[in-house]
Amino acid sequence: MTAAQVEAGEGPLAIICGGGSLPFAVADAVTRRGRPVFLFPIRGWVDPQAVARYPHYFIEFGHYRRFQRRAREAGCRDVVMIGTVLRPALRQIRFDWEVLRELPSIVRMFRGGDNHLLSILARLFEKRGFRFLGVHEVAPEILMPQGAIGRREPSARDRADIARGVALISAIGPFDVGQGVVVADNYALAVEAAEGTDLMLERIVELRAAGRVRSALGTGVLVKMPKPGQDRRFDLPTIGPSTVAGVARAGLAGIAVMAGTTIVAEPAQVAVAADAAGIFVTGIAAEEPVP
Amino acid sequence: MTAAQVEAGEGPLAIICGGGSLPFAVADAVTRRGRPVFLFPIRGWVDPQAVARYPHYFIEFGHYRRFQRRAREAGCRDVVMIGTVLRPALRQIRFDWEVLRELPSIVRMFRGGDNHLLSILARLFEKRGFRFLGVHEVAPEILMPQGAIGRREPSARDRADIARGVALISAIGPFDVGQGVVVADNYALAVEAAEGTDLMLERIVELRAAGRVRSALGTGVLVKMPKPGQDRRFDLPTIGPSTVAGVARAGLAGIAVMAGTTIVAEPAQVAVAADAAGIFVTGIAAEEPVP
Repeated sequence: MTAAQVEAGEGPLAIICGGGSLPFAVADAVTRRGRPVFLFPIRGWVDPQAVARYPHYFIEFGHYRRFQRRAREAGCRDVVMIGTVLRPALRQIRFDWEVLRELPSIVRMFRGGDNHLLSILARLFEKRGFRFLGVHEVAPEILMPQGAIGRREPSARDRADIARGVALISAIGPFDVGQGVVVADNYALAVEAAEGTDLMLERIVELRAAGRVRSALGTGVLVKMPKPGQDRRFDLPTIGPSTVAGVARAGLAGIAVMAGTTIVAEPAQVAVAADAAGIFVTGIAAEEPVP
Repeated sequence: MTAAQVEAGEGPLAIICGGGSLPFAVADAVTRRGRPVFLFPIRGWVDPQAVARYPHYFIEFGHYRRFQRRAREAGCRDVVMIGTVLRPALRQIRFDWEVLRELPSIVRMFRGGDNHLLSILARLFEKRGFRFLGVHEVAPEILMPQGAIGRREPSARDRADIARGVALISAIGPFDVGQGVVVADNYALAVEAAEGTDLMLERIVELRAAGRVRSALGTGVLVKMPKPGQDRRFDLPTIGPSTVAGVARAGLAGIAVMAGTTIVAEPAQVAVAADAAGIFVTGIAAEEPVP
């Protein structure tokens, strides 16, 4: 491969992989589109057996120089970063000198929120000639479409709860809090912060068991959307069959996410699980004035 | 007692009591100020033995007519409502006809947030000639003063976290969510909604155990303040020794609350517990621009 071909982004797509099945779903979608992939699983987060069927090279958190060398050798210019990686404590990361040079800005980013962390990592890589892409750019088919997945549709009451949730997430956006809330009967039962969506849903189960949820079973909506101003190349909200299971356990009516900016892991299973549980999963248009 | 004396609020103060020790702290403070009290413990929430040393009459949630009759007999015009009462589900309350007449507005309030519930209850009572007062009006000595209780003071970093927390609570205020957040290193770890402060603090303990809190032990602040526009006669934020214990378990640096609008249950024990745990408990002025 010539330097010009690499520069044009014709080489393999480098996929930096965190945990979960999502990196493989992206790799498969990109492959189906005819573009080769090269995976960079983060050690400790990715099952070596699962990654074995792709060309790959294990990397460590903080060892960016090795990634860069190996990615260049593979002819990669474009990079996607996807999968679960809990942000480690600064003191737990062993940085190479590539990163140490940037240390002042990295320390600053660790005092900001998640957005900043990932954006600064991206800038670090882009200074070295790589280009960061979002999943929506390389595999749009794994994003949530507009409208319902599965048979159920939100009721008028659900739509009011969705509108309330969208407004609440927008209000907390500047604070880099979470991407999710649970609203039932116009009342915010839970706001997601560091605990993540799954634990937030577990909380609803516990509050219900303790008699502290007024709204009836089968009412209430999990609303997820990207934080305003979030760099959509990283950390898009994600739902999957386990989200459906959590929402069903929490006794809610359904799930509403932004169409086009939410990743749906295993959409077919999501539809089956939603129908079986009798809940709706709907993609709302970003510009749609929710009634 | 003459009708004129009752009208002037010279009769005993009626205290509708939920759970916890706070109703008795208020009753004792009001008594020390020379005003008699008459307690109306809500059945199921108040220990009959603890209330036995006060003139009292047990009432049920929803049976407002009996309360009104008995309060009039006792010469009460002013009413304070205090203590823990989890909002029951509408279907669990047996209403008397006094309330049934107001049913449409009560159903509306149950679809709003907590603020509305209590404000509408107050309006119901005020239509019948009672006057609702806040704890700050009858026993201001149980409110948080400005500055630190105990020896510790917040650091510059803590002050930045406090400012962030105040701004975040202000942003979610219009949504009638909770009154508390935990901010550490400028990052919101948790936002309180239906679960309440104690469970939110437990969550920090669990997130820490799971390695999902980046900030070091001894950093981070619990910030509590009334929701903007909240009717301060009801549901003021409250802290006590158990809040200090929860914050210590969560590994935070301290507690910041609005001075003058936060109830401190057992302030002496709060100071002792805070000093023993090495955490600060500070009252910030509502108008103070937190640096």
